Amino acid sequence: MSNTYNVNRKYSQALYKRAKEVMTGGVSRNTIYRRPHPFYVASAKGSYVTDIDANTRVDFANNMASLIHGHAHPAIIEAVYEQMQRGTAYTLGSEVEVAFGELLVERNHNFEKIRFVNSGTEAVMSMIKAARAYTGRPKIAKAEGAYHGTYDFAEISQIVKPNNWGDIDKPNSVPVTAGTPENVKSDVIVFPYNDTERTLKLLEANKKDLACVLLDPVSHRIGMFPIEEDYLIAIYNWTRKHKVLLVFDEVVTYRVTYSGAQHLYPVKPDMTALGKIIGGGFPVGAIAGDAKYMSVFDPTRKIIKQPHSGTFSANPITMTAGKVAMELFDRKAVDDINNITEIAKKQIGEAIKEADVPVIITGAGSMFRMHLRHKAPRNYRETYQCPEERKLIVDFLDYLFLHEDIIMINTFACMLATTITQVEVDRLTQSLLKGFKKFKAEIHRFAK
Amino acid sequence: MSNTYNVNRKYSQALYKRAKEVMTGGVSRNTIYRRPHPFYVASAKGSYVTDIDANTRVDFANNMASLIHGHAHPAIIEAVYEQMQRGTAYTLGSEVEVAFGELLVERNHNFEKIRFVNSGTEAVMSMIKAARAYTGRPKIAKAEGAYHGTYDFAEISQIVKPNNWGDIDKPNSVPVTAGTPENVKSDVIVFPYNDTERTLKLLEANKKDLACVLLDPVSHRIGMFPIEEDYLIAIYNWTRKHKVLLVFDEVVTYRVTYSGAQHLYPVKPDMTALGKIIGGGFPVGAIAGDAKYMSVFDPTRKIIKQPHSGTFSANPITMTAGKVAMELFDRKAVDDINNITEIAKKQIGEAIKEADVPVIITGAGSMFRMHLRHKAPRNYRETYQCPEERKLIVDFLDYLFLHEDIIMINTFACMLATTITQVEVDRLTQSLLKGFKKFKAEIHRFAK
Repeated sequence: MSNTYNVNRKYSQALYKRAKEVMTGGVSRNTIYRRPHPFYVASAKGSYVTDIDANTRVDFANNMASLIHGHAHPAIIEAVYEQMQRGTAYTLGSEVEVAFGELLVERNHNFEKIRFVNSGTEAVMSMIKAARAYTGRPKIAKAEGAYHGTYDFAEISQIVKPNNWGDIDKPNSVPVTAGTPENVKSDVIVFPYNDTERTLKLLEANKKDLACVLLDPVSHRIGMFPIEEDYLIAIYNWTRKHKVLLVFDEVVTYRVTYSGAQHLYPVKPDMTALGKIIGGGFPVGAIAGDAKYMSVFDPTRKIIKQPHSGTFSANPITMTAGKVAMELFDRKAVDDINNITEIAKKQIGEAIKEADVPVIITGAGSMFRMHLRHKAPRNYRETYQCPEERKLIVDFLDYLFLHEDIIMINTFACMLATTITQVEVDRLTQSLLKGFKKFKAEIHRFAK
Repeated sequence: MSNTYNVNRKYSQALYKRAKEVMTGGVSRNTIYRRPHPFYVASAKGSYVTDIDANTRVDFANNMASLIHGHAHPAIIEAVYEQMQRGTAYTLGSEVEVAFGELLVERNHNFEKIRFVNSGTEAVMSMIKAARAYTGRPKIAKAEGAYHGTYDFAEISQIVKPNNWGDIDKPNSVPVTAGTPENVKSDVIVFPYNDTERTLKLLEANKKDLACVLLDPVSHRIGMFPIEEDYLIAIYNWTRKHKVLLVFDEVVTYRVTYSGAQHLYPVKPDMTALGKIIGGGFPVGAIAGDAKYMSVFDPTRKIIKQPHSGTFSANPITMTAGKVAMELFDRKAVDDINNITEIAKKQIGEAIKEADVPVIITGAGSMFRMHLRHKAPRNYRETYQCPEERKLIVDFLDYLFLHEDIIMINTFACMLATTITQVEVDRLTQSLLKGFKKFKAEIHRFAK
């Protein structure tokens, strides 16, 4: 049994007992699972979440980066309530799906056309299918360690370990899910992030079969550092030469600038998958990009290359919540949240120095991640947490959650909301400082 | 240009012009596309939908069968509004996901465990992956013509025509989306629905590689008739013998009884995909089934066969709306809606007789579909609408929509809501009678 720091958890413990009766492992979503059991929310407002045992915590996870304005923003609630009176979903269209489409297209000149779906997983799947439909080629290339949702092609090599990741010159295609067809593995080319020579060699060897190269410009799971510009440009140029599509997964990273992390770089993706914050707290995904590529979806053409619908796609509730959330996330709001994140990183940097622990902070925009390292990692293999290191991070996160009332993302990351102020940043810094001191010896032991 | 019956459509026409600027073909979802353009909803309540040009129509489509209580049910609105004050999504759990899981498990003894996702597409994809994870085998078998969402394996042979469907003894694996990898095609075995001998032969030939047989007990696209019992029992017995999973797609058909269409038959699926009505009008999907098979998702095990999350999976808004909707859809409500549907079918049957047209009605529970046939179809090839027949049905549906203010599903089907009364049934009957008379000559020409 792990240390529970005598936290009040009677009701969550009892509810989890019920949950285990009807859900495998007691959860519908592994994210919420934690030792000794998940905790359940009674109510949440702004950056504060109160569980059913009356513990109130500061939220730096925001439902895995999806709530850019924190919980229960009054403007979103009122707009959704108003829309609900007029219906939540129709077999017809609604004005708000057009208006929200216009808003997102207007924000990013790389988005000529947009199409909404229900999740980031659906967005990435539809985008990969669109790249295949446009090019007529079967394979995709993706970076080792990158997370792109649960479509099995996109999942390949998201979780790999030293015993199965293989030679860096030709990383293995390792499925996340048992029983993934061999055929899926062979249709995915895995390359090492930020390694131009090896990546181009792998792409070159598969150029005739590749529909697209899938990239996340600030990959959370690879280590949450911005992709190196030279590397990205080299891939971009290679894709132009070989007419392979360059597609971005910005489900997480759209928050980084007013127009997504892609605007940090002088390249233009052909299509981009969106999700998370653009739903205003409701299920969402989207594919946006060049009209040329997006035309595969066009139902008005004689031959529809990719017939596509989805019962709840572009439903007016998600469109309404998303539109309000993105209107509020204007240029000033983006600057403000990025500034407070910089302050947080600076303060935490000072805490790291004060505690004298080898911890590195990476990140971009309103998100950052910490690594138990002397030197910043550059790729998945350098970021990889061995089981002992993983155990230490879980212990640290348990301490923060149970003792310090801080909610962070389980990779040791924070994704801020606009409701975070200096008060919460100071509290985070203080809690982390205490943690760094408490776990100092172990951190020194594992830091590479 | 098609006949628009001088319907008021100035605002919808103008909005579609805007939509085309930002969406390929002007839509985010092909369902809403119609000639000459989609129509956009201003408000919807119960079974009535008013568009932005002030046309009010009776809704027999209910967002593709997903709104069991019609639009804007006050109890759902109030429950969601209350939940919104406490947040729409967390990195923690919520009590309502457990309570709603309990409710659905209690309704069907085949559901030992349940897991929520965001759409029917995600549910079918996760279920297929779970079958592979449990069995370690790569292939799936599915019925020709059946629709199971947009996961490419599940999509195979959903849309086939005489020129590509191939020999009935071994139907071709035909992708819906251009560029679908050959490998996906070869991992899907397509069999003819309701044809025991051919189906068993195809299954037998692939028994060592099959993870599951995927079936929809009242397949909408195959023709919306209940699967023949002997056939289903034969498949069930075959799967027991060869330890292949039998998995059901009840995303549409869960509404047929209090516990799904599966309870019409003396067989037990190993897993079932759900969606549509269980979300109460909000994006939803679920996988339910035996604890043994569902255990692949278990995050508490040392080896997690199918690591699975999803940012919005089991979010408390969908769980709240779904729980209220399903509580209201009690045994009496199921009986009532099925009874009014029987009345509708009987009245339409009389209209068919009066108009003297060869039209057959198929269906189950609260859903039915019409076929321009002298004899009820038994499989996809018999249901298949050739281009001329398709054009006639679209003309008929345009007449109903534009002239009679009736919204139906584009396969010539109705999926009722509990808000439908004798008034709306009479109106539907009268409109169909007028249509049968108007299109009588063409119907006679194409009916087989």
